[in-house]
Amino acid sequence: MATFPPVEYQDASPEVRAVYDDILAVRRVDTINNFWKALARDPETLRRTWERVKSIMAPGSLDPLVKEMIYLAVSVTNGCGYCIGSHTAAARKAGMTPEMFAELMAVTGLANETNRLANGYRVELDARFTAPWQ
Amino acid sequence: MATFPPVEYQDASPEVRAVYDDILAVRRVDTINNFWKALARDPETLRRTWERVKSIMAPGSLDPLVKEMIYLAVSVTNGCGYCIGSHTAAARKAGMTPEMFAELMAVTGLANETNRLANGYRVELDARFTAPWQ
Amino acid sequence: MATFPPVEYQDASPEVRAVYDDILAVRRVDTINNFWKALARDPETLRRTWERVKSIMAPGSLDPLVKEMIYLAVSVTNGCGYCIGSHTAAARKAGMTPEMFAELMAVTGLANETNRLANGYRVELDARFTAPWQ
Amino acid sequence: MATFPPVEYQDASPEVRAVYDDILAVRRVDTINNFWKALARDPETLRRTWERVKSIMAPGSLDPLVKEMIYLAVSVTNGCGYCIGSHTAAARKAGMTPEMFAELMAVTGLANETNRLANGYRVELDARFTAPWQ
Amino acid sequence: MATFPPVEYQDASPEVRAVYDDILAVRRVDTINNFWKALARDPETLRRTWERVKSIMAPGSLDPLVKEMIYLAVSVTNGCGYCIGSHTAAARKAGMTPEMFAELMAVTGLANETNRLANGYRVELDARFTAPWQ
Amino acid sequence: MATFPPVEYQDASPEVRAVYDDILAVRRVDTINNFWKALARDPETLRRTWERVKSIMAPGSLDPLVKEMIYLAVSVTNGCGYCIGSHTAAARKAGMTPEMFAELMAVTGLANETNRLANGYRVELDARFTAPWQ
Repeated sequence: MATFPPVEYQDASPEVRAVYDDILAVRRVDTINNFWKALARDPETLRRTWERVKSIMAPGSLDPLVKEMIYLAVSVTNGCGYCIGSHTAAARKAGMTPEMFAELMAVTGLANETNRLANGYRVELDARFTAPWQ
Repeated sequence: MATFPPVEYQDASPEVRAVYDDILAVRRVDTINNFWKALARDPETLRRTWERVKSIMAPGSLDPLVKEMIYLAVSVTNGCGYCIGSHTAAARKAGMTPEMFAELMAVTGLANETNRLANGYRVELDARFTAPWQ
Repeated sequence: MATFPPVEYQDASPEVRAVYDDILAVRRVDTINNFWKALARDPETLRRTWERVKSIMAPGSLDPLVKEMIYLAVSVTNGCGYCIGSHTAAARKAGMTPEMFAELMAVTGLANETNRLANGYRVELDARFTAPWQ
Repeated sequence: MATFPPVEYQDASPEVRAVYDDILAVRRVDTINNFWKALARDPETLRRTWERVKSIMAPGSLDPLVKEMIYLAVSVTNGCGYCIGSHTAAARKAGMTPEMFAELMAVTGLANETNRLANGYRVELDARFTAPWQ
Repeated sequence: MATFPPVEYQDASPEVRAVYDDILAVRRVDTINNFWKALARDPETLRRTWERVKSIMAPGSLDPLVKEMIYLAVSVTNGCGYCIGSHTAAARKAGMTPEMFAELMAVTGLANETNRLANGYRVELDARFTAPWQ
Repeated sequence: MATFPPVEYQDASPEVRAVYDDILAVRRVDTINNFWKALARDPETLRRTWERVKSIMAPGSLDPLVKEMIYLAVSVTNGCGYCIGSHTAAARKAGMTPEMFAELMAVTGLANETNRLANGYRVELDARFTAPWQ
């Protein structure tokens, strides 16, 4: 059970409904995810979070599929069940194939492994990697 | 200080040197990273880890730059200093621009934030995201 | 399913029952949480853990509500479902309002985000923050 | 070394300088932290991050000291060295005493421990904690 | 629901069935765990992961029970529900008693706590612990 | 720099000195680690933490070397630099060989990898692993 009862579209205040309408339009979907319905208990949290997601996940130097896969790699690393479920769906919608998913998981698993090898063997950063990026 | 003294090329056994030579050839570099020199205390760990990295990070359904950025997102999430330093360099070499890095960090930060909102608000996965991927 | 069958009050040994009675008295509740019933398989683990919780969560320089919110922020960061559920309840009982919860989540999300920005941009600690606290 | 050379006040573009001036005014300090100087390589990241920090860390239902301590508990849990250093300073400035710090660390340590006991003993959430917060 | 439909033995391709047969033989079990059935969507991921698990978890300088308990300590730290469930079973099969489990959990909890005390008090590594292991 | 100036033996209060003396006797060492000197700013935190470490790390169903290796696996997973350095030394003193260290790191890396595969492929726990341990 979510901490707060989900705020359904038909019960939403005008402020919440405005955010929901923007989500439906920008995402070109016809359903609001439970994540937004749970945050909507506090309309300011809902609005602020959606504005950030909309802005950061939009096409830029990285295309939306790459952004969704990065999001999924982080969620898998943190073990966030909700986020893994919803962003696997989002990445698929953005074009992720099963082959891309398998490679994404392989890289995510590898990085989680070698991060610990670097920690455990206490590897010192190579001097040539310490110079700032001009 | 690394846990073990780094194994330098000129001091390496033939077994270790064979791995070093493969790294230099596949990566088209002229220096071995401290990570490999630290693992080389145990040649089997060195060989096995390099084989995995070589295989998983090779071009496939995802191109090497995307793989390096996924690796970096995981390393930043886990806070592995060595890995952040060395894979920022690797991603730059594979074509990451400062603009791409800024977007990568924004997505990584956002995912780490919203993972916790989903946890804290205890959002239930939407039923339509639970169906298996056929 | 918990790893061990929960030890119910009526089935508890005198040693376990003494801890249960102390929990009921100190917490002014009439039910033992599943957490304690699961630990009770090993009475020493139960006793030691309860003594620590009782001592550390008691009023001190920080009041119990602040302590419960700190506990919740850590549990949300680690993604411990049980702990999020039980400590949201505990924090509410100690006086947390929905507005306070929303701010707690916002700060927790922000810290999880900016921790990664600091990691990823490899920010060096300002010299004035390195002096010890006298 | 930070990933990018820090952007010092005297070298900052008008856009960056406007953010720096706001930080100096809102925080009532006379120095910009390295965190902001590192983000300033990308002025949009700087501006967006500062707006969020300013808004979320401002007094609300929770006072600034409580917010700083929550921030510190998360940073300690994640092991972000920069964040621990800078937010210990910020919390001290907001009124944290050594006694409060000791209690904050004790609660943070306890939560990190008991989160793992709950995970390891696979404790099921008590039915009475699953009802939504009306 | 797993991301992909589980690949059952009777439906498996010869390539997948060969891995399944090896698992059944090496582990001396008569059932394939859901983990392998989920990975089997991508036979190469299945094969590579099983080869690694078989090699790393085999008896060596550390006996299989110690390895299973280390695996469980990591899984509990990361909060991986599947891994905690399946490796508690594996450790029990390798000889873990309830008393050993209780001590394993106590050490895991303690390490998670004191890791944060070391982070929060920003303890510097003692000079005598920095010398490499010859 | 540690958050508080380290409390050296010759400057310690009788209460702190009593803990230091117990550490020196139980551990059969002639030097106090920086960890204890940092905690000693708050004698109650010092005493409580030492009592726990002494009790939990003592021989029991698991021998001290196994306990030290479990501690190290957790510290490597969490990336606690201080803890990795000091517990590598402690494990070596308890008998860990370089071969055992290499296997410990391999298992720790593997568990960190496969935890993420289980998360990412959303593997459901096998029904036979859900029965409680009688």
